[in-house]
Formats: sequence, C-alpha cells, structure tokens
Amino acid sequence: MSNLLNSTLSVINVGLSHFADSLDAQGIPTARVKWSPPAGGDPVLARFLRSGLQSIAQKVEEANARAFKHIINAEPYWVGIKRARDVVPGMEPNVILHSGPPISWDRMAPVQQKGILGAVQHEKLAEDEAGALRLVESGAISVRSAMDMGVAGAGAGIVSPSMVVNVCRERNTGKEAYCVPFEGRVGLGVWGVYNPEVEATLHRIETVLGPAIDKALAASDGIPVRNIIAQGLQMNDDTHTRQTAEGYILVSEIVPLLLQADLSNAILQECVDLFVSSERWFHPLGIASALSVLKGIKGMEYCTLLCTMCGNAVDYGIQVSCLGDRWFTSPSPYLTGMYLSPKWSQKDAVPWMGDSCIVEAYGLGAFSGAAAPAVIRLRGGSYQDGIQQSEEMKQITTGVNYNYPIPLLGFSGPPTGIDILKVGMTGITPLAHGGIISHQGGQIGAGVVRLPFECFRDAIHGVSERYGLQA
Amino acid sequence: MSNLLNSTLSVINVGLSHFADSLDAQGIPTARVKWSPPAGGDPVLARFLRSGLQSIAQKVEEANARAFKHIINAEPYWVGIKRARDVVPGMEPNVILHSGPPISWDRMAPVQQKGILGAVQHEKLAEDEAGALRLVESGAISVRSAMDMGVAGAGAGIVSPSMVVNVCRERNTGKEAYCVPFEGRVGLGVWGVYNPEVEATLHRIETVLGPAIDKALAASDGIPVRNIIAQGLQMNDDTHTRQTAEGYILVSEIVPLLLQADLSNAILQECVDLFVSSERWFHPLGIASALSVLKGIKGMEYCTLLCTMCGNAVDYGIQVSCLGDRWFTSPSPYLTGMYLSPKWSQKDAVPWMGDSCIVEAYGLGAFSGAAAPAVIRLRGGSYQDGIQQSEEMKQITTGVNYNYPIPLLGFSGPPTGIDILKVGMTGITPLAHGGIISHQGGQIGAGVVRLPFECFRDAIHGVSERYGLQA
Repeated sequence: MSNLLNSTLSVINVGLSHFADSLDAQGIPTARVKWSPPAGGDPVLARFLRSGLQSIAQKVEEANARAFKHIINAEPYWVGIKRARDVVPGMEPNVILHSGPPISWDRMAPVQQKGILGAVQHEKLAEDEAGALRLVESGAISVRSAMDMGVAGAGAGIVSPSMVVNVCRERNTGKEAYCVPFEGRVGLGVWGVYNPEVEATLHRIETVLGPAIDKALAASDGIPVRNIIAQGLQMNDDTHTRQTAEGYILVSEIVPLLLQADLSNAILQECVDLFVSSERWFHPLGIASALSVLKGIKGMEYCTLLCTMCGNAVDYGIQVSCLGDRWFTSPSPYLTGMYLSPKWSQKDAVPWMGDSCIVEAYGLGAFSGAAAPAVIRLRGGSYQDGIQQSEEMKQITTGVNYNYPIPLLGFSGPPTGIDILKVGMTGITPLAHGGIISHQGGQIGAGVVRLPFECFRDAIHGVSERYGLQA
Repeated sequence: MSNLLNSTLSVINVGLSHFADSLDAQGIPTARVKWSPPAGGDPVLARFLRSGLQSIAQKVEEANARAFKHIINAEPYWVGIKRARDVVPGMEPNVILHSGPPISWDRMAPVQQKGILGAVQHEKLAEDEAGALRLVESGAISVRSAMDMGVAGAGAGIVSPSMVVNVCRERNTGKEAYCVPFEGRVGLGVWGVYNPEVEATLHRIETVLGPAIDKALAASDGIPVRNIIAQGLQMNDDTHTRQTAEGYILVSEIVPLLLQADLSNAILQECVDLFVSSERWFHPLGIASALSVLKGIKGMEYCTLLCTMCGNAVDYGIQVSCLGDRWFTSPSPYLTGMYLSPKWSQKDAVPWMGDSCIVEAYGLGAFSGAAAPAVIRLRGGSYQDGIQQSEEMKQITTGVNYNYPIPLLGFSGPPTGIDILKVGMTGITPLAHGGIISHQGGQIGAGVVRLPFECFRDAIHGVSERYGLQA
C-alpha cells in the first residue's frame, strides 16, 4: 500500500474517531469560521453518522482514498473543439441542454427557458421564439440536464447539437467532458441570450474558428490543463472567478500550434484575437477538465465523495460517487458578493445557476481561495480570509492535492475530494465561487455561495439505503 | 500642492524628526529584521544626519517628493530592438561595455574580461582571444561601464556595437534605456561566454529575429511595460528573479503585433518560439524600463534618491540623483541563497555582478518581495518573510507605488525611491534579488544580497560636499 494511501486513511480515521468521541463538543477551528451545527442539528443523521456507518466504514475509507488518488493523479488535456452532435453521446438533433439538475419546463427559470428557445432557433428548428415555445411544449424538443449527458453547462448551460464544445480528456481513464467556449459578456451558452449578434458569433466559431483551433489541437497531443492550473494557482487564479494567468499561459500553448496548422494569416489573427481579447477563455477548459476527472470516480462502490454539484437557478443538485446518477436537490442558494454596478442587488439576481462549480469538487475555486487574493478582495476580504476559506474546506475534504501547490498554504495544495460524510459530521457545507447572473441573463457581479445542507443530508440517507444500513 | 506631495513630505518629516529626537533609541521594527546600527555606527555621519543637513532639509524633501512622483507616474514602453551602434550615444566601433561601475582591466573579474575578449571577436576586430587581448591591452578597445553609457548591462553586462539591445522609452520624458535580449542559460551579454554556438545565436537575432520583432514593434505604439509589471506583481513575480507571468503576458502582447508585420510563417514561428521557450524574456525589458525611468531623476538638484546601483563582481557602485554621474563604490558583496546544485557554494560564485538591480531602485525585485512567495521560497523563506522584506525596505524609501498594487501588502504598492539619507539614518541598506553567477560565467543559483553601507556613507558625505555643508 502506498504512502499516499496510508496517510490518507489516517486522516480519515482521525476525522471519524474525533467525531465519535466528541460529537457534542465539536466546535469551529477559529472564531472567523461561520459556525454550523454538527449533522446540521439533525439527531437522526447524527446517530447514523456516529454508529450506523460502522459496518461499512473501512470500505468507505478505502474507496475514498482510491477516489482521491485518482483525482490528484488525473491528467486532463484540452484535445479538441467540436460540434456537440459529433462528440456528446445521445446528442440527437432535437436535444437541448441546460445547467443544473433536471427540471420541468414549468419550474424552470425564465433565463434558462429563453436560452432553450434561443437554441431551438439557432438549430433552425423554429423561426421565432413563439415557434420554439410550441415545439418545446409539444414535447418535440427534448430538454435535458447537461450533467445527465456528460456535459458541463456553465451559467445557463445551454448546449444544442450544432454548437461547438471544448473537449477535455482525462488521460488515465480516457474519459471526456465538454463545455462550450467562452462567449464574452453576451452569449447563448452561458447567458441564455439569443439575438442576431449572438447568432453571428456562434456561426463564426462553429464554421471557421472552431475548426481552425481544432485542427491545431488535433495535430498535437492536446494542451495539458493540469500544468496550466498548477501554474495559475501560484499566480492569483482560483480557476473559477479568475483565470487571468491561466488565460495568458493558454496563449503561449496554443499560438505555436496555430502557427503550425497551415492557416491563413487572417484566420490566425482572428483565432489569436479570440484568446488574447478575453481573460476568461480558459474558464470552460477548467470546467470540462474537472468534469472529465470526476467522471472517473462516478459509480465507485462505497465512495462518498461528491462527483457532481450544480444548480439551475431553482434547484441545487449533487451526486455522490457510490450512488451514480441519483440526484439530491435543495432550493438553489443565492451568492453573496460584489455587484458590478450599485444599481444591482440580490433582487436582480437568480439563485446559483450553472455547472461551473464542478471545479470546486476538483479542489479549485472557493477551495483554492488561498490562491487568489484578488478574488477574495472582490467581496472585501483579505488574503488571510482566503487562507481561512481553504482551511475551512479542509474539514470536509479527503486530502490536499500536492500537484497544485499554493504559495499561501506554504506550497501545500488545495483541499480536494468533498466527502458528504464529513459535510454531515461538521455541518460545514462546500463554498463555491462564481458569477452573479441577472434574471435577464448576463453577469452582474461575482461572489461566493454556501451550499444548502439538506441535499447532503438526503444524500447520506441515500448511502444508508444503498447499503441497507439502519438510519 | 498635490495631496501626493503633501503626504510624501509628511512621511519624510516623521523620519527626520524621529531620528533627531531619538537616535540612540532607534531600534528595529520586528525581531526578524537584521539589526543595523544607525548611521552604520559612524559618529561623524550620525552628527551630520542629525544637524548638518538642516539648512537644505526642506529642499531635499521637495526634490525627493518630485522625484518620487516622477518615478511612480513614469510610463516605460518597449519600443524596439536595435543594434547598439544605432541607438546608444557614443557607441563607437571600438567600444565594449561591461556591467557595474568603471574598473581598470587589471582589477576586472575574469568572467567580464573573457566576455570583453569575446565581444572583440564577435565584432570581428580580432580572430581569437589572444588577438583580442592585445587590442584591449594596447588601448585600441575602449572598455566602458555600461551605466556610464546609459545602458543597463545584466550579469556580465557585455555589449558591443553590433549586438542588438531592447529599447525602452519612458513616455513622460522621452528618455531611453537599453538592455540586451535574454540569451538563455549560455550567452555573451549576460554570462560573458563566447563560442561558435553563442556566435550563431547572436548572428540570428542580430540579422533576422531582432529586425522582425523590431518591425512588429515599430508599427505599434510599443508595448506598455508598466501595465505588464502591474499584473506581474499580482501574479507571484518580483520582476527580478522571477518574471514568469510577465513573460506570458508579453507573449499575448507581442504575438498580435508579429502577426500584422508581414513576416513569413517560418520567421513567425521562430520569433514566437523565442518568447514562449523562456520564462525570462521579459527580464531585460524590466531592467531597461527601470533605467529609462530613473534617468528622469538623474542630476536633479537636492534629490538624495538613488538613480543607479550596480556591481562588476569587484566593486559595487551607486549614484545619487543630485550628484549626477559621480560613483560611490564599495567592495561588491556576495549573494546568499540557493545553489542549483549541491556541488556549488560561495567559492564558485563571483560577488554581485550586473546592473539588473536597477529594478530594485524602481521598487521591484527585493523591494517587491511580498509579491513573490515563489522567489522568497528559493532561499527557504515563507510568504511572511517576503512581506517582512518589503516592510523593511519601506524604512529607506520615499513612498509606495500605488500603480503596482501587491496582494500581500493589502494591495498597497512596493516601497519605492531609495533615499540615501534614510539608509544613513537607519543603517539599513537595500536588498537586491538576483542570480548567483559562477567564475566561469553562467547561473549557479539565485538569492539575495545586502548592499554594503560604506558607499552610502561616502555618498552622504558627497552630498555634504556638494552643498558646502559641515560634516
């Protein structure tokens, strides 16, 4: 057994025994951490966590250690940019995706509804919004959760068959995940906005720029995303709200490939402009990479780590490794943070919407708060607050990812591998960084969200059912 | 009078009066700062600083505030890459430059001597080293201090008329400064190494790549170096030992210009490779920019800020604004730090050699230690040590440069504008980051150097003489 596995197990044992010995005494690491009642104050859950789990505890620990090892050793690469219909399994001509857990049309947030109607028009299945609505209501359009299709939908998460997606592949498993390219401040995929300008941008990337970049990538082994993230976390990026350094590094990686791809100078200039004109081109690559990694632990018996976390502006949903595709949902929470204009406030914002927080399940974003003082500062915090935030998340994770050394953590890595049992024990739920999105679509701020406890409680009961344990 | 000027003056007054009131009591800010005796323990100097300066104190304060304002408002741009003979005033065909203050041939370190002999051959003035030596000893070659010619010589600082130099221009004054392009781990300019491989590299950049890049720059307004440094200091760069982020940002700035310069694809690829294959291409741009800024305060009456600091592996020299071109020298100090291999130690290293520490006089490098935990870690330090280092340098500087916000200083800027009077009062001399260079030429480590006090003491006496004060 490797040293890594040993040390991971010992960390877990400490957590479990400490909990069993002193449940009521369990407090908070420092005065600055928001206090949360252990087991969310739920006595049934507390009893289950204290004693009901004993019969599978060893198997859980081993499975979680194995999953953690997979996560930190994973090697995601950006390998292509393709039409969704050509790479996403099951992406039939009438399928349109949205972010978050599945939701019925009548409960769906207007911003996602508008995005889906826009995508129907983009697919030329309808000529206007009214026609698109008729198709959706008739059932001719199959509206699906992106995550259920193996796609990460950032923001509104709108993906239709003709749209291009970045393809990221995790080398150790070969598993792929997908996320639409960054569209700027206006766009269909992330913001659910559809108009002639958006259509023109989509058309250009689908027919010219996407194929050009894909050609450049195809002639290479792909671009190593882990290496870029490892550098970015030392350069003030959290890889969720900020990927400024990662975007610059990406330029240095992609330009030499583009220059070798036999493209015209005009197309070269247009492709390069795409990358250098935005700080956030790397964002969907981080998202798709995180999902490609976490697909590798989905369905792992006895593993209690999160493999999916996402929202659709109405429901927030999680999936747990050992429970496969089963969703556990709570009402989607609101972000707190800074609005881009004083005219905006929470009443203008939708609750958490998007699959981008899959990066948190991979140890990035809020879990790497110590890496990014610039992000913490957006909501008035200091670098010490960022360190504190990463330290808090350590209490609900399996270990630290030493492949991602963070200077302010003494070059130790971010807390990684969210264990729903530790969430249950401590009552501390994960944090996620992210953009604040308006009801109309479009970013109006940036901040942080604390996930609801209830979906974790339900997921723990799900584990209990799955293994026939007594609650 | 601007608020800036007011606040700067008040800072200086506090320093002077505090010194006058409690010279003997003056201590150290925290236990971690190396203690230095005020006035270097020199009673004559102490008396002069306490009372001898009173008659010019107001003029000094105003001049220093004006100089400080110039420094922080300066806007250096990278505007070209040209043959030294075409841009450096006085760069006659027989002139060869070295780093540091002027030094006679017989006192010069072997690594600089070898570099100068290599440059004579590169200029095709001699066919071999023996022939080159005869020319130097005959006086046919004019060996000059680079700084005396307005050039910053990194490392050995070898510059000959045919070599290309980066041209940086400070926009508010139009003043230009020059530094040879980064050569990699082996090269003539920085490391004093000359052989057929080095000759081939020099020939390529002088005849093909330099002109290509210069063409791209010439069609633009130049590349704004201040903007790149401002980002780099938020991304773990100190802009002396590390400029990783700045190098990436530079790629994003230069590639679009190269693509518009009507270059062949092969030359484009070669130019891009030059930038992406090294993390340190930005280094000479930071150096030349710092010098272009500090040229703007040279010769300013009553100004007691450093405008030059550099070494030649034998002598370390400084120049003070109000004393113009006059040098004050001390024996060059050794760096302490990490060697790249355990086989090396201080006996393999030369004392400080190079003009790169001009970036420290601009508030970067060691003064921005708080910006770069990765650099501090090279010698075993923590991010807290980096903060402490910047805080210590605050005691000998005029203010902080708010155009360069540093996350770990609460997004305040680096201490900037080294005042020799404050060095005298506190006994604290400047620190500089830098590479450790072997006797043979070539980098064998990286670390930090503490400058000797004596040259500062002599410079303060120089101020006394200049203004007819009683020591």
